[in-house]
Amino acid sequence: MDNLNKDSYLPYYLQIKEIIRERILNNIYEIDTLLPSEKEFCKEFNVTRATVRNALRELKKEGLICTEKGVGSIVKPHKIEQSLLQFYSFGRTLKNKKDDFISKIISAKKIKPNCNIINRLEIKKNMSVYEILRIRIFNKSPLILEASYIPVHIAPDIIKDKLHGMSIYNLLEGKYGIKIVKAREYIEPQVANEFQSKHLSIEYGSPIFHTERLTLTHNNKPIEYRNSLIRGDKFKFYTELY
Amino acid sequence: MDNLNKDSYLPYYLQIKEIIRERILNNIYEIDTLLPSEKEFCKEFNVTRATVRNALRELKKEGLICTEKGVGSIVKPHKIEQSLLQFYSFGRTLKNKKDDFISKIISAKKIKPNCNIINRLEIKKNMSVYEILRIRIFNKSPLILEASYIPVHIAPDIIKDKLHGMSIYNLLEGKYGIKIVKAREYIEPQVANEFQSKHLSIEYGSPIFHTERLTLTHNNKPIEYRNSLIRGDKFKFYTELY
Repeated sequence: MDNLNKDSYLPYYLQIKEIIRERILNNIYEIDTLLPSEKEFCKEFNVTRATVRNALRELKKEGLICTEKGVGSIVKPHKIEQSLLQFYSFGRTLKNKKDDFISKIISAKKIKPNCNIINRLEIKKNMSVYEILRIRIFNKSPLILEASYIPVHIAPDIIKDKLHGMSIYNLLEGKYGIKIVKAREYIEPQVANEFQSKHLSIEYGSPIFHTERLTLTHNNKPIEYRNSLIRGDKFKFYTELY
Repeated sequence: MDNLNKDSYLPYYLQIKEIIRERILNNIYEIDTLLPSEKEFCKEFNVTRATVRNALRELKKEGLICTEKGVGSIVKPHKIEQSLLQFYSFGRTLKNKKDDFISKIISAKKIKPNCNIINRLEIKKNMSVYEILRIRIFNKSPLILEASYIPVHIAPDIIKDKLHGMSIYNLLEGKYGIKIVKAREYIEPQVANEFQSKHLSIEYGSPIFHTERLTLTHNNKPIEYRNSLIRGDKFKFYTELY
């Protein structure tokens, strides 16, 4: 149970709205299913029916739910919001009990890196790199087509690990003891080509995000360079600017 | 002159590279023009020719310059990098002595706001809002197509102001005394439709960013809601994630 904050400048109905909103975005209340009834929310938050109704009205305004008379409130399809306010990992954030988030490995092999990868990873020309191509699948929909490049000496056995069920970051930290300190990320809009649209199950020419990420450990040492293509119909990025 | 930091873990050539890179991205060294000579950089930074050459080699690797034998280093066309690490305003950041950044007003009028705008700006249904449509033009290229919505009572005369030459944020802060505290921003990829591609001088179906921004003053009070369409061939967003 989430508690309301009596000292907040936010009225109760907006606090409740935020709590329900979070649960919807985290798939605790699933798309196309009924929300708990107004009565249940009254009981959970110990507030009046009018307060709950105000909260639901706000969610309706945001397009997150719709209300059917005599039935209740239904969760509408929505984009996954990914905050840019902290380090994110789809493998970590989308993986919770209610979700079905898996990675399908297209290929995982040792390669001779090209100039761009050598420069990004700041390695010597003769060093080998693992290239791992994955499709990240969320609730049966392919969402992200991703290429990761990791110097072989950083994680010598990583392509033998259970990559389809694991976050690469969890493997790097858990098995190889490499602390992830930060990531530098570039975001660009792109239009899906034939290969990309096929793997992402979208139409040729659909808008996608292209993100380029360099993941760093202590002393700004690169440990992974990653290129991700993310479906624009399923995702939006969110940030706060000060 | 920018000084090198003797105590930095970064070698001199990488520090020099970063300084030159910043100048290129800030248009101090303009696209398609020659960089200062190696000799001039040696003098400015008080380093050897080898150090300057190493710095230039790094810039070449990043695709920011190309070198022509016997001529020197030329600044290549590149995307404008917009950091998401702090509040940004194209009207502020792109406006410096060397740039030619203007706003062309398509329309500026009082409107009856729709539901979405009422909800975003948290105003009453009967309140009027200014709608300002602008094209933001940088060095003669249209870059951004932007719709701003500002409650009339916040800035009663703003559509009479010199909007084509001014940042709206500067007007709000300078003339109307409204402190901008933060902004919430959503970023999505999109494909340009006919109207958008015409105004942005790009081909129909080109990738663009769609950003939605709510600008807030003290106590999270919304003062402006903005929808921007930003050319994907000219911009990329950059952030650091911790």
